[in-house]
Amino acid sequence: MRGTILYGPRDVRFEDLETPRIEQPTDAVIRMAATCVCGSDLWPYRGLQPLNGPTPMGHEYCGFVEEVGNAVKSVKPGQFVVGSFATSDNTCPNCRYGYQSSCVHREFMTRAQAPVLRVPLADGTLVPTPGVPSKDLVPSLLTTSDVLGTGWFAADAADVKPGTTVVVVGDGAVGLLGVMSAKQMGAERIIAMSRHEKRQKLAREFGATDIVTERGDEGVARVMDMTKGIGADSVLECVGTQESMMQAIHSTRRGGYVSYVGVPHEVELNGQDLFFAHVHLHGGPAPVRRYLPELIELVLDGKINPGKVFDLTLPLEQVAEGYRAMDERRAIKTLLRP
Amino acid sequence: MRGTILYGPRDVRFEDLETPRIEQPTDAVIRMAATCVCGSDLWPYRGLQPLNGPTPMGHEYCGFVEEVGNAVKSVKPGQFVVGSFATSDNTCPNCRYGYQSSCVHREFMTRAQAPVLRVPLADGTLVPTPGVPSKDLVPSLLTTSDVLGTGWFAADAADVKPGTTVVVVGDGAVGLLGVMSAKQMGAERIIAMSRHEKRQKLAREFGATDIVTERGDEGVARVMDMTKGIGADSVLECVGTQESMMQAIHSTRRGGYVSYVGVPHEVELNGQDLFFAHVHLHGGPAPVRRYLPELIELVLDGKINPGKVFDLTLPLEQVAEGYRAMDERRAIKTLLRP
Repeated sequence: MRGTILYGPRDVRFEDLETPRIEQPTDAVIRMAATCVCGSDLWPYRGLQPLNGPTPMGHEYCGFVEEVGNAVKSVKPGQFVVGSFATSDNTCPNCRYGYQSSCVHREFMTRAQAPVLRVPLADGTLVPTPGVPSKDLVPSLLTTSDVLGTGWFAADAADVKPGTTVVVVGDGAVGLLGVMSAKQMGAERIIAMSRHEKRQKLAREFGATDIVTERGDEGVARVMDMTKGIGADSVLECVGTQESMMQAIHSTRRGGYVSYVGVPHEVELNGQDLFFAHVHLHGGPAPVRRYLPELIELVLDGKINPGKVFDLTLPLEQVAEGYRAMDERRAIKTLLRP
Repeated sequence: MRGTILYGPRDVRFEDLETPRIEQPTDAVIRMAATCVCGSDLWPYRGLQPLNGPTPMGHEYCGFVEEVGNAVKSVKPGQFVVGSFATSDNTCPNCRYGYQSSCVHREFMTRAQAPVLRVPLADGTLVPTPGVPSKDLVPSLLTTSDVLGTGWFAADAADVKPGTTVVVVGDGAVGLLGVMSAKQMGAERIIAMSRHEKRQKLAREFGATDIVTERGDEGVARVMDMTKGIGADSVLECVGTQESMMQAIHSTRRGGYVSYVGVPHEVELNGQDLFFAHVHLHGGPAPVRRYLPELIELVLDGKINPGKVFDLTLPLEQVAEGYRAMDERRAIKTLLRP
């Protein structure tokens, strides 16, 4: 088969690779229905995160089980499955506490921009759908694998509750699905920070009640104006830079909740600043596996349509163009069809 | 009257000052039953926090109301009252959310190591006891003003619940009362980090089930050993240094809770480290006013005896010796009698 390898900054190649097969009795091999490019893939693509040589890419996936190892019990060939970007046994203490993305046996998936994928710890990582979903639901099901699961975690970790005021920092696909998640959790007011017309439109469609175009301290000042000087109950930080983190913390009311779900890059939090901000802070790699059953159900029931974040669909072999379009912000998120 | 002024590192003087009086209609003036030296007073005392010239000291207090301003409704002369180290109107949005120590009208008290004290925003800051408490309860009531309230917030912010495993970093008075608070909240296992025999003994008396003497990474390794490599559910950081903060974060299980209640001094948290630690983090100035009614009741009912943290009692005029004894760790906490 051919799969995606990042050789260096802006050097994505789709090239011959060995087709994955069962290596451990707990593995499954799946044939991809769809995969995609993640905002986090852009960090190494832009040279902002070092690579150790040529690196296979991709960690969002859904598709049909082709084969399973001897020890796999909960999925079988022919089933349609979605899995998390982080593998989990779903039985260790961290998993049982709901933090499957910190499973003691966690591996981060990294070969999913390919037509066939080996998934370790299949029983604890994959969730089968009841029956074969219709093709038009595949993009939305794919989002549950990471981008929706991460937006959902952002809203959950920021304690979004019915009636609350929520700010979402970041208008990438995670931020936009953070808006959708906050809406689902009953937020009354959802302020999306975005200066990009197309993304503003999608944010409104997903439930944003207000758009703020200012950033940094000016963005904070706008949110403060809009909340009578008190700040928002919940702020979802969906970028991962120093500026976005500070903006999130300072937009939150005392005793409010800040979540952060993008890997922070060169972020340092000053202890005293955080102390007097008086916020709750929670984040990390989203425990997508915890949410998968619920999110798959919401998609299959037609209650949410997160697949709308894909505004570019390409054949998998054009993956390099998929990266380029996102890098240049021509696309919010690229779906890849094997 | 005479009161306490810090002139510079290790230069505490007890000298003539104007006796406080009502300045605003919302003020009360109280005659101190007891006051004390706080661990946080040691930062400027040790020259580790800059002073803007001679600084009046003290922010823990209880005593009898002498006079109130025209607008004060909830306390009256003759009543015994306890107040928070931070004033609050108890009506602003931050207060209503339970974060009175971030009241929009907050002032930090700073003249309480004196026989008479003016308390601004008396209605929102002071809590009267039902009747006059017996003298032997005064030390414990005094602790509710800050040190117990802060230990209690540490346990609450770290989500201590019945059956949980708790670590307390710091064996100062706040840490020791954090142990007591965790015990009250039903923690099953309480690991106190202390290398000081007298403090270990008090920690055990307050409910610690285990003592760990190692610090930093070695302390983390010990806690990991004791929790089967998973970490504690709740960790109370009661010191405020880089080392203690890192020790707290790395002793916590994924998805667990870290609280921090001492003003952090030169602490910087690396975003990526915090991200992968996957913890909840909450702290800040303890909203003592929120807890005062409950804590006063626990003391008056004889259910807790937090006054035991005072292992040195001095006449107020010997306040300088009170600081010295704490600085040299001869005393855990000094009670001062006017």
